[in-house]
Amino acid sequence: MKTRPFGRVIPIRDAIEIVESKIKPIDRREKIPIDLTVDRILARDIKAHFDVPPFNRSAMDGYAVIAEDTFGAGQFDPKVLRIKGSIHAGEVPGVRIDRGECVEVATGARMPKNSDAVVVVENTEGEKDTVKIFEPVHPKENVSNAGGDIKEGEVILKDGELLDPGKIGVLASLGIGEIEVYERPKVGILPTGDEVSAIGMPLEEGKVYDINSHTVSALVRSNGGRANLYEIVGDRFEDARRSIEKALENDIVLLSGGSSVGERDILIDVINEIGEILFHGVQIKPGMPTLFGMIEDKPIFGMPGYPTSCLIDAYVFLLPAVRKMARLPEKKYSKIKAKISKKITSTLGRRQFLTVKVRDGEAIPVFKESSTITSISNSDGFIEIDYSVNLIEKGEEVLVNLWQ
Amino acid sequence: MKTRPFGRVIPIRDAIEIVESKIKPIDRREKIPIDLTVDRILARDIKAHFDVPPFNRSAMDGYAVIAEDTFGAGQFDPKVLRIKGSIHAGEVPGVRIDRGECVEVATGARMPKNSDAVVVVENTEGEKDTVKIFEPVHPKENVSNAGGDIKEGEVILKDGELLDPGKIGVLASLGIGEIEVYERPKVGILPTGDEVSAIGMPLEEGKVYDINSHTVSALVRSNGGRANLYEIVGDRFEDARRSIEKALENDIVLLSGGSSVGERDILIDVINEIGEILFHGVQIKPGMPTLFGMIEDKPIFGMPGYPTSCLIDAYVFLLPAVRKMARLPEKKYSKIKAKISKKITSTLGRRQFLTVKVRDGEAIPVFKESSTITSISNSDGFIEIDYSVNLIEKGEEVLVNLWQ
Repeated sequence: MKTRPFGRVIPIRDAIEIVESKIKPIDRREKIPIDLTVDRILARDIKAHFDVPPFNRSAMDGYAVIAEDTFGAGQFDPKVLRIKGSIHAGEVPGVRIDRGECVEVATGARMPKNSDAVVVVENTEGEKDTVKIFEPVHPKENVSNAGGDIKEGEVILKDGELLDPGKIGVLASLGIGEIEVYERPKVGILPTGDEVSAIGMPLEEGKVYDINSHTVSALVRSNGGRANLYEIVGDRFEDARRSIEKALENDIVLLSGGSSVGERDILIDVINEIGEILFHGVQIKPGMPTLFGMIEDKPIFGMPGYPTSCLIDAYVFLLPAVRKMARLPEKKYSKIKAKISKKITSTLGRRQFLTVKVRDGEAIPVFKESSTITSISNSDGFIEIDYSVNLIEKGEEVLVNLWQ
Repeated sequence: MKTRPFGRVIPIRDAIEIVESKIKPIDRREKIPIDLTVDRILARDIKAHFDVPPFNRSAMDGYAVIAEDTFGAGQFDPKVLRIKGSIHAGEVPGVRIDRGECVEVATGARMPKNSDAVVVVENTEGEKDTVKIFEPVHPKENVSNAGGDIKEGEVILKDGELLDPGKIGVLASLGIGEIEVYERPKVGILPTGDEVSAIGMPLEEGKVYDINSHTVSALVRSNGGRANLYEIVGDRFEDARRSIEKALENDIVLLSGGSSVGERDILIDVINEIGEILFHGVQIKPGMPTLFGMIEDKPIFGMPGYPTSCLIDAYVFLLPAVRKMARLPEKKYSKIKAKISKKITSTLGRRQFLTVKVRDGEAIPVFKESSTITSISNSDGFIEIDYSVNLIEKGEEVLVNLWQ
């Protein structure tokens, strides 16, 4: 059994920088209904093609008046105006008013010509054809002006903005039903290793189910990417090359397993032949044998096969890459302080990601082995133990990054 | 124009309590592929039906040995073992070893019978049929035991757990391809008001586009719910009743507009006839004329028609209701401290939600009018001004709840 040593095992920040330098935001656009654009990135400026609201409208139920007619009105000295008609919301007013006249208006109704203010109904006493006004209004009072929300010609949303309910409301206010957003980056996920068996079928003797395709695809999907799952890669050079070349239809390719030393590490040979390996080996625990390279303009990750190594690795390297391609802001973990429940030793020179659960202010390590999925699934989050730290005493305060 | 006064305008915490008391988590389940279950809620306990891993396997590349054979091995005094064969990952070992023997194993390979430890390849020097062992191992060293991750019979995930990449990994480790999750609550959204015009079509004279259906549906979708949009509700009693009755096919019904006083507030009459109004009017700004009731066992919200009032209202009342029905944890807003950029006055006795943008540590109010969508779309978040506060001085520190 030949073994192939790692190249230079590089610090995690160097590895992150190398990945970062190779990841470009996706430029492809797609047009989708605005109701499906939450957490998507707008792919063009939105310039208002009309005023919102498109006309002066009443902001209250009441009477549209010429403000001057109400000046001096008081509780015991009302002004009396002649009611010339009424306008409901959505109607096009046919009337105009002159001095001494008013029109009943509902909230949202277009203001009749010549009116410049609204007296709210609570400050009036209507009779058959006239209404008593008990309080004066100043011009523009209780009127929403045309363009008061958005002015025609204004660039109201910009290319690159993250869409949320409020901004989707702006699109709706302009009547826009479908809009261009950036496409989500596609991540092709290829499990490798003869010990891996596809889920949903009986488990073959001597094998374990493929976990990584599903943890990684879940991570990709919840960070603005699309995940394409491929069949388990064969262990012959030509098969592996064919699988990898096929997966280049994605924006990122991720191999899980097969990046460790060992005679069947033909994936390294394949990448070296059709592309370039930029690093192989990172000062991180778990996840040391992480590989990153480029095949033409496509980044390719090789993650360890062990489920917790692979998923921690994916959180550290793949997640920021996917979010950058998707133009999403950096992920911010909720953080809480807790006291570590027992003494922890770490390896100098490697940054350790230690999974913990948090109970009553205590951070309880749940990490068993990199090979176990429960090392991560039983945790509420993780703590980072830096290069220079090899010991955390029981009871020391640590900062936990929560998954949720 | 007749006006109908509000009933008792109740404090916001009473309103939230009333809503909370009427909202029950959804019991309906659906079975979906595990790759689509991120942020969904598991709807049954998961009991392992076999050990994970299903067999003892090597945790490293190296040689499977009987540990005792390596005791006393050293750099200058290696133990020499006879190589009896090799086992790759995924293979079923045909060999067993006896004292003095070993088998080459790859990481993940099933351990040969009688072996109890693995010497990592770095601590060996292989020759043709023998290998030199330079370091001793203790029994179980570098071996992942059967059931070491998950034990057969163990309840490894529980009904009600929020699924994330790690927990999805547990499902995969058990070979589960599809799983039961709770259905997402369905929210039927009905715009009302003759002034409202559907998006995607030319705007009719005197009308404005329907904003609320789209802001609210975006909010629902990003909080674990399904949004069903209905046509604009007509303003005749029978039409309104038919529309509302149709929308009862959802778990929650939301009307936007039409909850304010005014002669066309027939929605109130409809709800009173076929259901019950539990409150109408809340000490909140914007959003005072909020209505909540029950029609049979279905909660119904009446939100103000003004876009910012409606959306703030939806954040305050609808969002917690949808999340509770969906069994999701309460939404936690990221919060930052900032200094308010100008003096703010508020109304005593109402809790105000003031939208702000944050620039260089300053919270700059962007609220214009409740009728404008830009009051919310231009904001980064909001500050809450309590009942008892009627003034915030310029430069005072405030806590901003960020939308993102």
